[in-house]
Amino acid sequence: MTSKIEVIQNHLKEQNLEAAFITTPENVFYLSGFNSDPHERLLGIMIFKDAAPFMICPKMEVPDAKAAGWKFEVIGHDDQENAWELLANNAAKTTPAMTTLAIEKSHLTVERLETLQRFYPNTNFTGIDQLLTDMRIVKSQDELVKLREAAKLADFAIQVGCDELAEGKTELEVLSAIEAAVLKKGYYMSFDTMVLTGLNAASPHGTPGNTKIKKGDLVLFDLGVVYEGYCSDITRTVAFGEPAADQKAVYEAVLNANKAAIALAKPGVRAMDLDKAARDEISQAGFGDYFTHRLGHGLGIGLHEIPSIHGTNELPLIEGMVFTIEPGVYKSDTAGVRIEDDVVVTADGLEILTTFPKELQIITVK
Amino acid sequence: MTSKIEVIQNHLKEQNLEAAFITTPENVFYLSGFNSDPHERLLGIMIFKDAAPFMICPKMEVPDAKAAGWKFEVIGHDDQENAWELLANNAAKTTPAMTTLAIEKSHLTVERLETLQRFYPNTNFTGIDQLLTDMRIVKSQDELVKLREAAKLADFAIQVGCDELAEGKTELEVLSAIEAAVLKKGYYMSFDTMVLTGLNAASPHGTPGNTKIKKGDLVLFDLGVVYEGYCSDITRTVAFGEPAADQKAVYEAVLNANKAAIALAKPGVRAMDLDKAARDEISQAGFGDYFTHRLGHGLGIGLHEIPSIHGTNELPLIEGMVFTIEPGVYKSDTAGVRIEDDVVVTADGLEILTTFPKELQIITVK
Repeated sequence: MTSKIEVIQNHLKEQNLEAAFITTPENVFYLSGFNSDPHERLLGIMIFKDAAPFMICPKMEVPDAKAAGWKFEVIGHDDQENAWELLANNAAKTTPAMTTLAIEKSHLTVERLETLQRFYPNTNFTGIDQLLTDMRIVKSQDELVKLREAAKLADFAIQVGCDELAEGKTELEVLSAIEAAVLKKGYYMSFDTMVLTGLNAASPHGTPGNTKIKKGDLVLFDLGVVYEGYCSDITRTVAFGEPAADQKAVYEAVLNANKAAIALAKPGVRAMDLDKAARDEISQAGFGDYFTHRLGHGLGIGLHEIPSIHGTNELPLIEGMVFTIEPGVYKSDTAGVRIEDDVVVTADGLEILTTFPKELQIITVK
Repeated sequence: MTSKIEVIQNHLKEQNLEAAFITTPENVFYLSGFNSDPHERLLGIMIFKDAAPFMICPKMEVPDAKAAGWKFEVIGHDDQENAWELLANNAAKTTPAMTTLAIEKSHLTVERLETLQRFYPNTNFTGIDQLLTDMRIVKSQDELVKLREAAKLADFAIQVGCDELAEGKTELEVLSAIEAAVLKKGYYMSFDTMVLTGLNAASPHGTPGNTKIKKGDLVLFDLGVVYEGYCSDITRTVAFGEPAADQKAVYEAVLNANKAAIALAKPGVRAMDLDKAARDEISQAGFGDYFTHRLGHGLGIGLHEIPSIHGTNELPLIEGMVFTIEPGVYKSDTAGVRIEDDVVVTADGLEILTTFPKELQIITVK
C-alpha cells in the first residue's frame, strides 16, 4: 500500500516540485502520528520528491515525536537556535537548489513565508493544501477505530447529561457534570459543551447559563469528545417531563429529517441530495423557515472537515467519508431541536457511529 | 484621551499608510470589545488614516458586535457573499487608491494575503503587528479590573483543588472537580488545567492521568480562568500530609525565588533582572540545573503576551505591565515545585493579583 508520505511524493513528482513543507499541526499528526500544538515555535515536516522526509520540532518534544511512531529523522531546535536556518540547512543536504517549494497557504502566515523567502530568495512557492484536504476526506480503518471510540464517549456523555437533569438545576450545573465525567475518564471535549433548556435552545446565539431546567422543557445537548486525536460531535434533544404537542411536532420533523438523510446516503449520492432530503421533511412539516444551517460537516482530526453537507455541494459520497447529519429546527415560540449523528459511508449505505437513542427520550421528573 | 483607534490612525499618518486591516480575534476584541472566534469566516476591522473605521463580520454576529460596544459601522456578510469583495468595495468608498495597506503578518495567512492582492493588485502590504503588541503591553484601568477578577477566580479554583485532595483520588478526579466548579460559576478555563501529584510534577512532560494522590505527595496545580476576555494563570504546589525535608528544601528555594523577583520589580528594572534574581536564589540553594524555563510571561487577552521575563530581555518594566512570576524546580528524584503569581507593575513596585497563600500549605490527610 502506498504510504501517506509516498502519496505526497508522487504528487511532488507529478507537479515537478522539489519538496513540501507541512506545518498544520493536524496534518503533521495525520502524517506522523505526533499530535502537538507547538504554539509560536516551529513544527513541520519537510517531504522531498525523492529523498526521505524529516520533521523539525522543539527539542524537548523530539522523544515524543519518535515515540508517536515517526520513523524518519527528527531535527530538534531550542530557543537559542534559528529554527528556520536549521530547516534550510537540513533541506539543502538533499535539495541544494529548491526551485519550487509547496506550502500550506491556508495555514502558513505571511510572516513565516517571508522568513522562508529569506532562506529561499529564488524559490517559487505553491500551495499543497488541497492535496492534504483530499487525502483526509476518506478515513482509513485505523482512523475509523478511533472515530468509533470517540462516538462511544459522546454517547456516554449524553447519558451523563440525561442522568443529571433535575428540576431547578441550571444548564451550567448539568454541563459541568458532563465535562467532569469525561475528564475523569481521561478525555477532553472536542469543543465547549452546550446544554440549553427550553427556548434557549431555539436561539441561534444560545449559550449555556444559569437558566434552570423545569418540567416540560426540551433540553438540547451538543458535545463531542476527542479519542486519540479524533473528534466526535453529537446532539440530542430530550424532554424533561411530558412535552407539549407542538414540541413533539417539531421533534418528529427533525427526527424524520435525520432519518431521511441517513436512508438516502450511500456511495455516489451527492452531499446536496442529503441536505435536500432532510430539508424536504422539515419543510413538509411546515418548519422549513426554521432550519437555518447546513445539514452537516466532515469530521476526523478536525471538528469541521470536508465534505460539507450543504444544498449546493455536488460532491458524490465515497466509501470511508465521515460526517455529521444534524438537522435542526429553531422556533423561538415553541422549541429548539437538533438531532446529530456521526456517520461513515460504507459500500452500500452508512454506519452510524453515535448510538444514543433518537426516539424522543422523556426523562422522568422526580 | 487618545482612543485606541486614534493611536492606530496616528501611526498610519506617521508612516504614510492608507489603512490597516486588523484580523487577529484578540486584537479585534482589544479594539472593539467584540470577542468572537469566526473560525474560517472573515472577521476584521479596517482602520483608515483619516476616515471612520468599519468592522466586517459574519452577518449573524452583527448585533453582537454592536452590543459589545463597537460604535462604528459593521458590515455583515453571509456565506453566499464574497466577504473580501464586500471589504474592498466598502474600503473603496473612503480610499479609492489603496497605495499601502497594513496587515497583521503574524496572523494573516498566505492564502488570505493572495485574496487581498487580487482586489489590491497594485497595493504595497506592510506589517502592523508590532504596534498592536506594543499597545497591549500596558494595561488600562478597565483591563486591570478584569484581570483582578480573573485572578480571584484562579484563587478560588486552587482552593477547590485543595479541598478535593484525598488519599487515593486520581489527578483527573481532582482536575475534573476544579473545572466543574469553575464552569458551574459560568466561567471557562484559560487553558487545560494541570493537576500533577508526586514525581509526576517533576517531569517536563507531565500530563494529568490516573495516578493516585498519596500521603507525603506534593501536588502541583497550574490553571487559569477567563473573565470577560482576560486570562489568569496561577500555579500552587501544596503538600498532602507532612512533606519530607528534601521536598521542603525544594519548596523553600522556589518560594524564595518568587519573593526575590517580586521584591525587585518596579518601573525601570529590566525583565532580565527579575529572571536573574529568581534564578540566583534557586542556584544558591543548589537547584540551579532544575529551573529549566523562563521566569514568566505577559498576560492579558492572551495567555502568553509580552513582556517575556527571561534572562536576555533588557526591556525595562513600565507601570501597567502585567505578567507572571513562576519559578520552578523539577528534580526527578525529589519533587516538582512551581509557584506562579500574576502581577501588575505599579508606580513603585508590584500589585500581586493572585492571593492564594504561598507559604507551603499542608493539607490534612483525613
